[in-house]
Amino acid sequence: MAQPSSSSKPVVPLLKDELDIVIPTIRNLDFLEMWRPFFEPYHLIIVQDGDPNRTINVPEGFDYELYNRNDINRILGPKASCISFKDSACRCFGYMVSKKKYIYTIDDDCFVAKDPSGKDINALEQHIKNLLCPSTPFFFNTLYDPYREGADFVRGYPFSLREGAPTAVSHGLWLNIPDYDAPTQLVKPLERNTRYVDAVLTIPKGTLFPMCGMNLAFDRQLIGPAMYFGLMGDGQPIGRYDDMWAGWCVKVICDHLGLGVKTGLPYIWHSKASNPFVNLKKEYKGIFWQEEIIPFFQSATLSKECTSVQKCYIELSKQVKEKLGAVDPYFIKLADAMVTWIEAWDELNNNTSEEVPSKPTNGAAAAK
Amino acid sequence: MAQPSSSSKPVVPLLKDELDIVIPTIRNLDFLEMWRPFFEPYHLIIVQDGDPNRTINVPEGFDYELYNRNDINRILGPKASCISFKDSACRCFGYMVSKKKYIYTIDDDCFVAKDPSGKDINALEQHIKNLLCPSTPFFFNTLYDPYREGADFVRGYPFSLREGAPTAVSHGLWLNIPDYDAPTQLVKPLERNTRYVDAVLTIPKGTLFPMCGMNLAFDRQLIGPAMYFGLMGDGQPIGRYDDMWAGWCVKVICDHLGLGVKTGLPYIWHSKASNPFVNLKKEYKGIFWQEEIIPFFQSATLSKECTSVQKCYIELSKQVKEKLGAVDPYFIKLADAMVTWIEAWDELNNNTSEEVPSKPTNGAAAAK
Repeated sequence: MAQPSSSSKPVVPLLKDELDIVIPTIRNLDFLEMWRPFFEPYHLIIVQDGDPNRTINVPEGFDYELYNRNDINRILGPKASCISFKDSACRCFGYMVSKKKYIYTIDDDCFVAKDPSGKDINALEQHIKNLLCPSTPFFFNTLYDPYREGADFVRGYPFSLREGAPTAVSHGLWLNIPDYDAPTQLVKPLERNTRYVDAVLTIPKGTLFPMCGMNLAFDRQLIGPAMYFGLMGDGQPIGRYDDMWAGWCVKVICDHLGLGVKTGLPYIWHSKASNPFVNLKKEYKGIFWQEEIIPFFQSATLSKECTSVQKCYIELSKQVKEKLGAVDPYFIKLADAMVTWIEAWDELNNNTSEEVPSKPTNGAAAAK
Repeated sequence: MAQPSSSSKPVVPLLKDELDIVIPTIRNLDFLEMWRPFFEPYHLIIVQDGDPNRTINVPEGFDYELYNRNDINRILGPKASCISFKDSACRCFGYMVSKKKYIYTIDDDCFVAKDPSGKDINALEQHIKNLLCPSTPFFFNTLYDPYREGADFVRGYPFSLREGAPTAVSHGLWLNIPDYDAPTQLVKPLERNTRYVDAVLTIPKGTLFPMCGMNLAFDRQLIGPAMYFGLMGDGQPIGRYDDMWAGWCVKVICDHLGLGVKTGLPYIWHSKASNPFVNLKKEYKGIFWQEEIIPFFQSATLSKECTSVQKCYIELSKQVKEKLGAVDPYFIKLADAMVTWIEAWDELNNNTSEEVPSKPTNGAAAAK
């Protein structure tokens, strides 16, 4: 709140000093121009993937810090091994170095969508609304989000559950190019999502869902340490399961801790489909593995001693090693990386005032 | 299909000879005029509540059978005790005497709603679509019904689950007057539901929901014997929990048998709110009781031997007696009525060709 602002807008944007926008990228961030009216008041954390010597241009006027692979290696040292390279999974490094309560993460091929009335959708504002009002994971409300204007709990909804649960995650959707796997992309190359479903709903306790990282917000204080996007891309046998992995872990832990996960609004405009042939190569092991991974997470339970996200995550890593290690040795490596991730998270976050890593800010990184 | 039809429409309506429309009522059925284009091809089962000597007028041209209390008593004999009187719970008698595979039930204060483009919504057609395509109870699909045109399973959805599960129930929603309990009606007398959410979704396995009987369709062969609307109204300590009771039982049994329950589209236009003071009187015990009933159903499990809906329902009735009997003696009576219901159902349905009860048809009932 003490931060000087060049904005002359009369209203301070919601959570202006409590939310970071995390963007993984390998290119110039021209897509930010379209988001300027909504994102400019916020701080950006840009995680540059691929060649660290490449210069990423960020449009004028945005307040940002940028990390490339060299920065990640310098800040985390040997623990940098838990951060993926040449895969958008690298974005979770941004969650770790943020000092804010909330994170919004978006892909650089996502643009502002329009609602059915033709108005630009402020995706970030809707995510913030979703995060700031409770979830209803313990019983389904047929009129969807009961806290929304014009809605409420319907007849038969237990009164003892109407306070709801704190919301940890807000999962937004995509108009135009839907988030399909490679086989579906190949079979339906022309399919576009044109249906605007005007709803936000809580994913019930005990139910898993495919969490997409393209348009995602979460409460870092409530669930941050579980938002690890795994080992993907360079040197790994799998890609495009980074957000799925995080989603499975996050949901199991939210269920254990009594936290809520919402999906639905807001929509962003997903501009172009990635190459289905390339995707198939990245995904094909995941397509097999998920048939065993999902039953594993569906039956995973955490002990009473798991009273923090970190404790939950460490316990989950043990179960991953023990039960999924038999599926492929990759999961043993992943389970170890989960532990490293928590160690790195705690190192950067437990001593907030002392151990802030030196951060290159506002374009300085490219010159380093 | 051999049935002569006066309709000159070129296309035979979906499931024309496989679906009955069940309407509980105490008044003339003028509301059918508005539904004529959609309902006229179908057979109606009208369950007249209250004074059996009153004449219920049904608009010309509809094919129907009508049962009043005298008919129910005559057909079921002593087992008629399981059918509620002076409460719309009596509608379940219609489910029992139907010989069709599918049931659609609607309240007589529900009219044709319009979609956002201003077009009349054929609620029945949407319900039929919902029932004829599979559900996805085992994993959540973030783009809602994956079988709908323009949608599919998203990335990360296990391929082994993409066949889905048979759909047993389609729960439709309401524009204008939402289905609120008395306390919410009292607090928000002016609230109207104006939000058209263009989605159909499966309620995940393990999640209960408040099932409203106002606009509801189901597959009688798959789940019919569980669609008992309980003991409500005249002589009972509770009302307005008939559909809720059915919904809890149905969901537990669908989860056990691997069947799906959908909610969302279609909307009907609910014309007027019932009196909240009268409702409060009917509901207040339910408001207490549901705090114990819902945890009971949430933790209810059925044994492997329960391989039919009837077996599931009888086992559930035992658990109701044992566990909810302690909440109030009413549940002991209800548990017994659950058994009577199944006996009556089997009596009317197991010997289909022989034991069809004599039915008054097309207006003859009023003269009886």
